[in-house]
Amino acid sequence: MIMVKILTLENVKKLLTMQDALNYVEEAYKQLTLGNAIVPQRIAITDPAPGLTLIMPGIIGGEMNALATKIVSVYKQNPEKYNMPTVLAKIMVQDINTGDIVGIMDGSLITAMRTGAATGVSVKYLARKDSTVLGIYSAGVQAKKQVGGVYWGLDQKLEKCVVYDLNKDIAREFKKEIENELGIEVEIAEQGDDLLDNTDIIVAATTSTTPLFSGDKITEGTHLSSIGAHAPAARELDSTIIKRASLLAAGLKEACLAEAGDYIIPIDEGIIKEDDIVPIGDIITGKKKGRTSERDITVFKSVGISAQDVAVAKLVYDRALKENIGQDIKF
Amino acid sequence: MIMVKILTLENVKKLLTMQDALNYVEEAYKQLTLGNAIVPQRIAITDPAPGLTLIMPGIIGGEMNALATKIVSVYKQNPEKYNMPTVLAKIMVQDINTGDIVGIMDGSLITAMRTGAATGVSVKYLARKDSTVLGIYSAGVQAKKQVGGVYWGLDQKLEKCVVYDLNKDIAREFKKEIENELGIEVEIAEQGDDLLDNTDIIVAATTSTTPLFSGDKITEGTHLSSIGAHAPAARELDSTIIKRASLLAAGLKEACLAEAGDYIIPIDEGIIKEDDIVPIGDIITGKKKGRTSERDITVFKSVGISAQDVAVAKLVYDRALKENIGQDIKF
Repeated sequence: MIMVKILTLENVKKLLTMQDALNYVEEAYKQLTLGNAIVPQRIAITDPAPGLTLIMPGIIGGEMNALATKIVSVYKQNPEKYNMPTVLAKIMVQDINTGDIVGIMDGSLITAMRTGAATGVSVKYLARKDSTVLGIYSAGVQAKKQVGGVYWGLDQKLEKCVVYDLNKDIAREFKKEIENELGIEVEIAEQGDDLLDNTDIIVAATTSTTPLFSGDKITEGTHLSSIGAHAPAARELDSTIIKRASLLAAGLKEACLAEAGDYIIPIDEGIIKEDDIVPIGDIITGKKKGRTSERDITVFKSVGISAQDVAVAKLVYDRALKENIGQDIKF
Repeated sequence: MIMVKILTLENVKKLLTMQDALNYVEEAYKQLTLGNAIVPQRIAITDPAPGLTLIMPGIIGGEMNALATKIVSVYKQNPEKYNMPTVLAKIMVQDINTGDIVGIMDGSLITAMRTGAATGVSVKYLARKDSTVLGIYSAGVQAKKQVGGVYWGLDQKLEKCVVYDLNKDIAREFKKEIENELGIEVEIAEQGDDLLDNTDIIVAATTSTTPLFSGDKITEGTHLSSIGAHAPAARELDSTIIKRASLLAAGLKEACLAEAGDYIIPIDEGIIKEDDIVPIGDIITGKKKGRTSERDITVFKSVGISAQDVAVAKLVYDRALKENIGQDIKF
């Protein structure tokens, strides 16, 4: 009889910090570049179900030795029909040495944290070192963790966040929560374009499928991270900003070339080439150079990949063992 | 807070009978033919792990409404290095209406049972109705469940089983267990070829990668089921028996054409065509005819597909709810 550790959302909340998540996601990107991590093409299941399920396994070698699978479902009717969240996720962690499933954990917070951490890694490597002000499109759940990612990516030097969201109630809740959690000033913008001046970093974390702003309005020296749109025909960034940028980075290049309209559309337009996209892992490992001047505009695009989940799930599992948190069930 | 039902191997043993497994696997094959079930290409993960993990999700609509993913690992060093089984498996069952993972169960017995059930379905539809004697290659774990499948496929009319295994200790244990469990006579064969005379059904459930017998030795009227070899260059049945057979059936045709040397090699040799392979679901639904005379030789080949696991996991989960078996954990 083998023990399996079960970690609820509450358990994961206790165990997971953005600072750690950032380090682990950075390591995942590094191992991808080194060829020690594999992100298989995920499986999508829809019909005859009334929603979408994604099966996302991944493996990371090196010193991390992590093997896990996330099962995440997106059922739009859930809130109305069942009073349940649209997105549900669980992650099964295997012992890489035996194959045994040793941990099963809630995956919702991990998904938001690893997405924030991806932006954090990009900020750490690509934003100007003197950055202090963030502008963010959306005040939703993902957006909150984006601020955390930027905060730690700047080594706690973030001073202010300007947020824009069509829903002002959500924006006010965002302000309260972020000010309370990170101790930084949060300003609610009236217009989307209000984010573009006097900000060092711009994060796009929306459900929009069309560009959020005109790229010619971006100040030199800005770092941008887009984690929203993830379909070939959808994008948050327009072709102008892609053209102006000195550096176009990607979480996993292959995934962005398959799913991110932000890069796919300008490539199709002939504005950039596939070769212009640099995996962030290449920058982390020093294989490619990152920002070269204070005036560079840098862009980071990431679509969610299993390696991020696998890394953060491993972090949570290891810490749960150490701190003896969670239910150990006989299985 | 949502409850998840955890079902150990012991729980599954209590809940699962071969008779039920056969009915559910039959329904899975039927729904595949009707286009209500989907078996995505499974994901295989190896390097940098020292073993293989297969991620096998599937969905079955119709009245079954089952959605589940099996994670199965095959680590050959486990017994020696960790005193653990080579094969470990767990199945995550989702509520098809919400996407939520509602059950997590041990998958080892389910894997053996659904493989036995597949042979059972083939026996039900393709073996002669007056069949009473089974010859089986291998006395291993899978083989035992094959006998159960044949027993129920013949509606309990199986009277005798002749078993051949190189390891006579395993054969003796098989004899004891099957006689005790099913109340039929078990004879241990000295030679593999001893199985070929006076048997109505022959099952091949070995790890062999080359044919187990010469196809010209098979008596007219025999039904054969091969569930062993599952690589394009490996097979348990030779080209002669494939050529002699009146009917070549498959669990999932696409899977057999991708993985089963038993059919791939004769196709490559020009002995049969892809079109000669009939999905068992087509026979269950009456779309194609099965056995047409007492003298026909019929062949069934199956490689494990997720739909079998999904069906049997749903069966086990539903029954566990009804009988209130398993641990209900807050998750």
